[in-house]
Amino acid sequence: MKPETDSRWFTELCEEGGSALSLQIREKLHDEKTGFQHIEIYSTTHFGILMVIDGFVMLTSLDNFLYHEMMSHPALFTHPDPKRVVIIGGGDCGTLREVLKHPGVEQVLQVEIDERVTRLSEEYFPDLCESNNDARAGFYFGDGIQWMKDAAAGSIDVIIVDSTDPIGPAAGLFSAAFYRDCHQVLGERGIIIQQSESPLLHYESIIQPMHKAMRDAGFSDSISLQFPQPCYPSGWWTSTLAGKEDIRRFRANDAQQKGFPTRYYNAAIHQGALAQPEFFLSD
Amino acid sequence: MKPETDSRWFTELCEEGGSALSLQIREKLHDEKTGFQHIEIYSTTHFGILMVIDGFVMLTSLDNFLYHEMMSHPALFTHPDPKRVVIIGGGDCGTLREVLKHPGVEQVLQVEIDERVTRLSEEYFPDLCESNNDARAGFYFGDGIQWMKDAAAGSIDVIIVDSTDPIGPAAGLFSAAFYRDCHQVLGERGIIIQQSESPLLHYESIIQPMHKAMRDAGFSDSISLQFPQPCYPSGWWTSTLAGKEDIRRFRANDAQQKGFPTRYYNAAIHQGALAQPEFFLSD
Repeated sequence: MKPETDSRWFTELCEEGGSALSLQIREKLHDEKTGFQHIEIYSTTHFGILMVIDGFVMLTSLDNFLYHEMMSHPALFTHPDPKRVVIIGGGDCGTLREVLKHPGVEQVLQVEIDERVTRLSEEYFPDLCESNNDARAGFYFGDGIQWMKDAAAGSIDVIIVDSTDPIGPAAGLFSAAFYRDCHQVLGERGIIIQQSESPLLHYESIIQPMHKAMRDAGFSDSISLQFPQPCYPSGWWTSTLAGKEDIRRFRANDAQQKGFPTRYYNAAIHQGALAQPEFFLSD
Repeated sequence: MKPETDSRWFTELCEEGGSALSLQIREKLHDEKTGFQHIEIYSTTHFGILMVIDGFVMLTSLDNFLYHEMMSHPALFTHPDPKRVVIIGGGDCGTLREVLKHPGVEQVLQVEIDERVTRLSEEYFPDLCESNNDARAGFYFGDGIQWMKDAAAGSIDVIIVDSTDPIGPAAGLFSAAFYRDCHQVLGERGIIIQQSESPLLHYESIIQPMHKAMRDAGFSDSISLQFPQPCYPSGWWTSTLAGKEDIRRFRANDAQQKGFPTRYYNAAIHQGALAQPEFFLSD
């Protein structure tokens, strides 16, 4: 099988892994070049709706719950009392939906550079957008890096960087300069969490440099949480937490009594995701 | 991209997932039809050596450590004092190597139906076979189902079912009849562990029926452990433990002081793998 166009399959090539994932499709539902990127939406045979940006799988109906839950609840149950949350990226609104499940959260701002991602998600992933009308939710369509430069010091409790891969427009979201701005914008117990790619394919190229950049920016601790994400290269993914205080403990009792539905996350899963594979420890 | 032969890629189609994984190859190193199955060996660009049986990826050099460690150490650190171990399948010898890292183990018998798998592994995966000459290791090339029928009652501490998917010759390894034989062959604190496919793709079709079959066979408890396995469909895999006693606790202190190298497994990873995704709990 070679990487060629076949109307029955969408294929994402992962050059750094020498691998490719293909999903069988029923039809292409949408194809649009926005001012920022190329967005495609497909209906698949087994993974539900598929959104692709610039050739990379962003999410599918079937497995996005893993990513969205692990990008939100670990950070929110680690901060002692999160009230003010900002999501950088996250245009599909799936992370926003999870954050809004926390009753203590008072405001969530989603800072997405490309409004079309959100508008298409409203159309094709209505489940993920079901909380978009929550009075606590805000939407700003603009540059997350600039937003972070301009935000008031100490004004945010949790920053969630729900971005595309560290190439193209999102590259700046993986830099120490950006993390320094995040550090300043966060309150004294503030936490940042960012998607940080695959332990198998990107440990040395992305995960380790991210930790270094976060610590260089002033965060006292950082740790990568692992979780499955079948539609991304290798099926094994991480989110990296950094904080001004201890981030290895979390409000486990609150997580156990979370009082809202999830499909993957719970307190035991949170604790398990903090477990570091042996090869993380030997470096 | 469509599922057709291209000499630069090996592709495994996963029909029940509507997905396919492709690995970029340098060359095909071996192609053989044994009396049991079709074995192919490739050199890949990023995943090292790849073994394929009947079109399904069995293992790669890059990521087999995840599977082999999670098929062995959780069971061995759950049993209070494992001395006698049998591996059903496991012809690549990777599980055998991990089991032999436990100094308390006195004998390990690998019961593989197809001797050619082991001979080819000796040639192409020498690392996995590095302990094959250990005096505690034994090799029997024959039918694991029949072996289990014939084995003496109470003669084994840990049974590891390291088999192919539950189709073809391995189908009988997923049956209550087989588990009843295992139950009889195990000592009073005996434990069985078996690979049990993907939580995303096979939860209802394989994982849940396996638990039912194991309990029907007399095991008092069973639990599925999750771990990443990038070369298998969805990249998210499980091994299912069943025992005659509590299997949710393990010798954590011994695991913390294991005294042998691993790349993924450690005590925290073991505890984390026992965490059940929320959708496992709601059924």
